[in-house]
Amino acid sequence: MKTIAIDIKHALCFAGQERYDAIEPEAVKGIDNLNNNTGAGNDFHGWVNLPSEISQAHIDDINATAASLAGKCDYVVCIGIGGSYLGAKAVIEALSDSFAAYAPKGGHPRVLFAGQNIGEDYLAELQSLLKGQRFGIIVISKSGTTTEPAIAFRLLKEQLENQVGKEAARELIVAITDASRGALRTLADTEGYKTFIIPDNVGGRFSVLTPVGLLPIAVAGFDIARLVAGARAMQDSTLHAGPSNPAETYAIMRNSLYRSGKKIEILVNFNPKLHYFAEWWKQLYGESEGKEGKGIFPASVDLTTDLHSMGQWMQQGERTIFETVISVENSNCELRIPGDKDNLDGLNYLAGRRVDEVNKMAELGTRIAHVEGEVPVIKLTIPQLDEHTLGELIYFFEKACGISGYILGVNPFDQPGVEAYKKNMFALLEKPGHEEATKAIQAKI
Amino acid sequence: MKTIAIDIKHALCFAGQERYDAIEPEAVKGIDNLNNNTGAGNDFHGWVNLPSEISQAHIDDINATAASLAGKCDYVVCIGIGGSYLGAKAVIEALSDSFAAYAPKGGHPRVLFAGQNIGEDYLAELQSLLKGQRFGIIVISKSGTTTEPAIAFRLLKEQLENQVGKEAARELIVAITDASRGALRTLADTEGYKTFIIPDNVGGRFSVLTPVGLLPIAVAGFDIARLVAGARAMQDSTLHAGPSNPAETYAIMRNSLYRSGKKIEILVNFNPKLHYFAEWWKQLYGESEGKEGKGIFPASVDLTTDLHSMGQWMQQGERTIFETVISVENSNCELRIPGDKDNLDGLNYLAGRRVDEVNKMAELGTRIAHVEGEVPVIKLTIPQLDEHTLGELIYFFEKACGISGYILGVNPFDQPGVEAYKKNMFALLEKPGHEEATKAIQAKI
Repeated sequence: MKTIAIDIKHALCFAGQERYDAIEPEAVKGIDNLNNNTGAGNDFHGWVNLPSEISQAHIDDINATAASLAGKCDYVVCIGIGGSYLGAKAVIEALSDSFAAYAPKGGHPRVLFAGQNIGEDYLAELQSLLKGQRFGIIVISKSGTTTEPAIAFRLLKEQLENQVGKEAARELIVAITDASRGALRTLADTEGYKTFIIPDNVGGRFSVLTPVGLLPIAVAGFDIARLVAGARAMQDSTLHAGPSNPAETYAIMRNSLYRSGKKIEILVNFNPKLHYFAEWWKQLYGESEGKEGKGIFPASVDLTTDLHSMGQWMQQGERTIFETVISVENSNCELRIPGDKDNLDGLNYLAGRRVDEVNKMAELGTRIAHVEGEVPVIKLTIPQLDEHTLGELIYFFEKACGISGYILGVNPFDQPGVEAYKKNMFALLEKPGHEEATKAIQAKI
Repeated sequence: MKTIAIDIKHALCFAGQERYDAIEPEAVKGIDNLNNNTGAGNDFHGWVNLPSEISQAHIDDINATAASLAGKCDYVVCIGIGGSYLGAKAVIEALSDSFAAYAPKGGHPRVLFAGQNIGEDYLAELQSLLKGQRFGIIVISKSGTTTEPAIAFRLLKEQLENQVGKEAARELIVAITDASRGALRTLADTEGYKTFIIPDNVGGRFSVLTPVGLLPIAVAGFDIARLVAGARAMQDSTLHAGPSNPAETYAIMRNSLYRSGKKIEILVNFNPKLHYFAEWWKQLYGESEGKEGKGIFPASVDLTTDLHSMGQWMQQGERTIFETVISVENSNCELRIPGDKDNLDGLNYLAGRRVDEVNKMAELGTRIAHVEGEVPVIKLTIPQLDEHTLGELIYFFEKACGISGYILGVNPFDQPGVEAYKKNMFALLEKPGHEEATKAIQAKI
């Protein structure tokens, strides 16, 4: 089976072999940390062996739950924020028809997301859409008290109970939460919701291969066993240190570039279905590395679309960027450019050729142009967009992220900076228990 | 009528009044350039007086064309790339129901976009969606030979002619193109398509207030006269130099921050409907300023969503960023948080309060946290999301961009770097007329 290939030659020529080699021992140490459960944040290493630990019974349980929801619902709303929505959204978007929202295919429920913002219009319009519709809820929260998902869940639970009654609603709500503690666990046990557990040792941004990601993906009609199998294959490929470990190569390469002054990494796709995959990647790397005044700034573009927006900057702006391109080798559809007898648009030289051939030449042409414009380019080639490949890609980026964070010298598994806005928000909203903070912040504004 | 307000105090404290004052004369010179049609790129100053030059007859013509398409189509596909799709997409998304794709409202056609990528799956799936549907095409291209839109137009024109016949198809296609030259002009005149003109002196990224943006926005059911009126109001407010000119203030402030080492500007919204507005803004600023090895890197986040992905980096990563927050003062919907007798989620302190109040406290809390984390914050307040306000906001950013580019010392109206990938792509695809380049590039790879 074809797998992910990494090509760093157009990046190495910028950072230099010497800088790369100097980092290698740090990468080996990072891999050792992950394999031996040592290093900063090692109480959140649960994702490392996750793919090989997922049992068939667990997959079956998730699939059965998904089938049950699918049988009863036209819409399933996933309520969660950050890692509790990005992984599922990334995989579902990558595998779905580009226009699935307009015309659902395959008889699966449409998966919507809520609780990832505090948009009054967004939530009101969601409630309007769901009025009288057959819908279910997957609510994802370790604690059950995170503000964004808690607000969305209150609103939608009330709506669902009003629409179908409290009894029937219980069969339409699945909670993914802590094994024993927290508000959502208590509520789920009281109401008798079907539940799945978020493991204690897996952080949000590494949780896509737990029920947090797997259940919504299964509801949308995709094969989670193949997703996990892909991740497991990559777990094997990235176990040992050495030049054939693609995650190690990527981690070393990006840190080499960072140390040579490249401050911004742009994740590039030439397939718009990977748009949300880049959003998932941004959380993974931004939250793992952006601390202590350091870290590569993660950005993303969809090409060739954004060659006509960010392309000018990338070609000729400050030379502080590098690119990581995800190249999808094979399209899932086949479409050829038609001929035209008048050829006014001058496209007849492409007649009969596949659209993807043009896209591939745009990709190659862009790489040559960017490298000549002094932008280092790392290339990841994946065979196609399917569950197995996405599983590989997810685990590849996770493993590389752990290694990279250790090279950078931070704890890649905490996110202390995320609390800052929450504390201020609670103080401003006068949340009980925050009286002192309320006084302090009111004096400040 | 309430208008856009700019607050720079949490940015000025980082860059310093002295640096700000030093740039002011450069801004005045930039405004003079724009008003007197002098300075680099002055042959592309057509957007400066555009709002006041748009006649009622022109608006009526666009609205009549939109109504004609609306009467015959359930889908209208806009074919264009870069500035030929971002402005329309930005405005339509900002004004539409968040779930409009799932359940269309108001009887207007659904506006789709194509020709902004070379996705084989994307185009194949679009053709599949449109099979047997009542659809029309707005094709937008100055030349008619830009590869991405030309491919999409060939495919969709053929499909439309096959579905309804060549005669009927002519009534369902509108071309927005050059007044007299180019492949699309020739085709449109031959076929008798309804056409609109892209003015010679308005570049793509400044074209949203030409038919390029206005026709798709009108087709989607929005009031383009109010959009233009908003832009015209801002044209008046930004005509003269001085501290009450918000575009001047923004242009000076961002350049002050850039000169003090802030290399990345993050456009922040707390309303997900502004997501594509940020994409439009990225093209406007990235393409205008990213040249000659300089320019602020434009990035964007949707909050609070991305506080759970990029938030950690923004709070504690490298201190090289600043933010420009677009704060929408009033929601269009009203939604209050329900009470709950058990209060397991601890949200009862919010019961009866509006969702937007929580959002506003998140916004304020974030600003305080980021400023304390050494991130300068510029705040733009807009009264609500409607046509008039968006018209103001568009012109505000355009005017500020022109001023800012002149402060930076570049030609803000060219985009020489965009050609690089195209040349390589043509050579790789062996396009007639590129034989020498083909040989050269084949020797290179």
